[in-house]
Amino acid sequence: MLGNFRYHNATTLYFGEDSLQYLNDELQKYGQTVQLIYGGGSIKKNGVYDAVTAILKANGKTIVEDGGVMPNPTVDKLREGVAIARANQVDLLLAVGGGSCCDYAKAVSVSIYCDEDPWDKYFVRFEEPTCKVVPVGCVLTMAGTGSEMNGGSVITNHQEKLKIGHVFGDDVMPKFSILNPRFTMSLPKRQMVAGIYDIFNHICEQYFSGEDDNVSDDLAEALMRSVVRNSLVANEDPQNYEARSNIMWAATWALNTLISRGKAGDWRVHMLGQAAGAYTDATHGMTLAAVSLPYYRYILPYGVKKFARFATRVWDVCPDGKTEGELAEAGLAAMENWMKTLGLAMDLRSLGATEEMIEGIADATFNLDAGYKALTRDEVVQILKASL
Amino acid sequence: MLGNFRYHNATTLYFGEDSLQYLNDELQKYGQTVQLIYGGGSIKKNGVYDAVTAILKANGKTIVEDGGVMPNPTVDKLREGVAIARANQVDLLLAVGGGSCCDYAKAVSVSIYCDEDPWDKYFVRFEEPTCKVVPVGCVLTMAGTGSEMNGGSVITNHQEKLKIGHVFGDDVMPKFSILNPRFTMSLPKRQMVAGIYDIFNHICEQYFSGEDDNVSDDLAEALMRSVVRNSLVANEDPQNYEARSNIMWAATWALNTLISRGKAGDWRVHMLGQAAGAYTDATHGMTLAAVSLPYYRYILPYGVKKFARFATRVWDVCPDGKTEGELAEAGLAAMENWMKTLGLAMDLRSLGATEEMIEGIADATFNLDAGYKALTRDEVVQILKASL
Repeated sequence: MLGNFRYHNATTLYFGEDSLQYLNDELQKYGQTVQLIYGGGSIKKNGVYDAVTAILKANGKTIVEDGGVMPNPTVDKLREGVAIARANQVDLLLAVGGGSCCDYAKAVSVSIYCDEDPWDKYFVRFEEPTCKVVPVGCVLTMAGTGSEMNGGSVITNHQEKLKIGHVFGDDVMPKFSILNPRFTMSLPKRQMVAGIYDIFNHICEQYFSGEDDNVSDDLAEALMRSVVRNSLVANEDPQNYEARSNIMWAATWALNTLISRGKAGDWRVHMLGQAAGAYTDATHGMTLAAVSLPYYRYILPYGVKKFARFATRVWDVCPDGKTEGELAEAGLAAMENWMKTLGLAMDLRSLGATEEMIEGIADATFNLDAGYKALTRDEVVQILKASL
Repeated sequence: MLGNFRYHNATTLYFGEDSLQYLNDELQKYGQTVQLIYGGGSIKKNGVYDAVTAILKANGKTIVEDGGVMPNPTVDKLREGVAIARANQVDLLLAVGGGSCCDYAKAVSVSIYCDEDPWDKYFVRFEEPTCKVVPVGCVLTMAGTGSEMNGGSVITNHQEKLKIGHVFGDDVMPKFSILNPRFTMSLPKRQMVAGIYDIFNHICEQYFSGEDDNVSDDLAEALMRSVVRNSLVANEDPQNYEARSNIMWAATWALNTLISRGKAGDWRVHMLGQAAGAYTDATHGMTLAAVSLPYYRYILPYGVKKFARFATRVWDVCPDGKTEGELAEAGLAAMENWMKTLGLAMDLRSLGATEEMIEGIADATFNLDAGYKALTRDEVVQILKASL
């Protein structure tokens, strides 16, 4: 059954090959000065930077540059972005890039008019903003994080070896996001498949918990089927618009709160993966991939009914002649086969983790009491060793 | 593939057994005078009227009564509601009931400050409001129409024998809707199953069109599976909260624009059913049920691939040994079996339609060029005769 909940998501989305033109309409709603946030410069190569700045200029906006956002945005970069925003009294934070840029823009937005240190306030004490929040808009160039339609923001603190996410409320969600699947097509294949696994794992984290009949799980299965089917097409032909458009739209709905309504979540794979990411600085989706199967195989006996449903509903495993446990394992075997086909990282060692890091990664892994089984720290170490 | 589109839906939803309490929070956002819209008085029997008015009084609101909204709200009632709103200068239209009350509230909201006749402006010329729109809130007591999270409003004109729907834009959507599945449980079983078929058909209307791979169709299948599974439980045990909660939430997502994004729609069953409804005043969901199978069987040869997918994905029909056509027909046979199990109207005659009405109903059936096959008027007559 569905438990009690609230649902509200007011982000306006423009989707498709002609979607960037709607930036003209959105810019009318905001003030003069736009902080243009982007990453390592790929948008300067694929034409997106030129297209966006042309629209900003045509609308008479003052552009304040804020490039160089790294794949795992750091607290040092966050403080730099806040300083830029303050110095220029910006009216809109426009993230042009993937989830990292969008996450970073949200962290900047809640920190500009905040006197406290943002790391302490938002990523240690998990407080809500008590100051003015500067609006965020997004031109998305990578499908994965869902950051374009949620309040999530993940920031990494290398000094403390922590990578922590905060899900902010309605006011911090992007006011608008522009999703053009063509903008994702110049992404290197390794980044594409890492994003695809991030999407799939977002759905898993909300799916593998609870055993009631609820429509949220039906919707989760629909998104997983679409992601799997289209990822296999995109893996063979990254320029396939049909596949890339479905993946991009599924990514948004995988993490905009819909499929978590009225049910428990887990998020342990993200906790493990993010802890590993703080040690290795590896690509987010790859860290998730590396720990997923050891974790799911470990908890399978405690949620066997759901894993069996996963096998039949997502992977079309035929239940005939199988016990529930065999069916459940066959589902994870199908998932493993799919992951290997995409060329995902299947272990943490390939991402730069070592035996010596295990204890530290375990210390940085949070939320041990979610999901089908509460984990002890020893069990976390055991799962991390199996992931190595 | 997904075509180009915009998505924005800002309605705030409160779901669950404790959801009515959030009316206190929402009332803070609006002015002094609330037009309380409800139907034939069932909310006075099941306690919902008392609970809502207690909250309105506790918040010091002035209540303006507007009861007696009929299942198919009429243009005469609409004009009456507009007069009430004008005389009292109301600040909020609070619909407490099913989709009829919510549809009616939206039609009133766009007409209060409009000098033109609302029937002509909105239901003949399909214009958008050019005046102030008074906000609408909803306390939902029946799952079916999805009116709680969309801009739709269907009004009936008995003089002209027309029942016409207008889908208004963002500003007219309810600002908030309160969904407590327990409030749906005092509904007579015939009304419950009519609502369930309305939900299912909303999904069909968006699903049976186009043959590309797109995630909207995956989501549609998930909602259909959930509705079918939970309807069978609710049919045996209408007090089953799990079933009623899933049906209520699926109803909202069946028609809040999500599953129509990026693809063609059809809506021919609604056009046929609404035309029949204008002649018979029969329950909306029942008119849809009566015309569905004759229509779908007629267009099956033109969309056979999708009907075959429907069979396997929604009804778990095994494809082994069947041609695509046989599979497609087996899906509709499974649907027919389900409809009969629920006790839905399987023909128009049982709803009061007669041979003599067929030509008039055909004249009142619009949008003949949607879906897998453009229909001639002769074909509409043929389908209506098969539905009789």
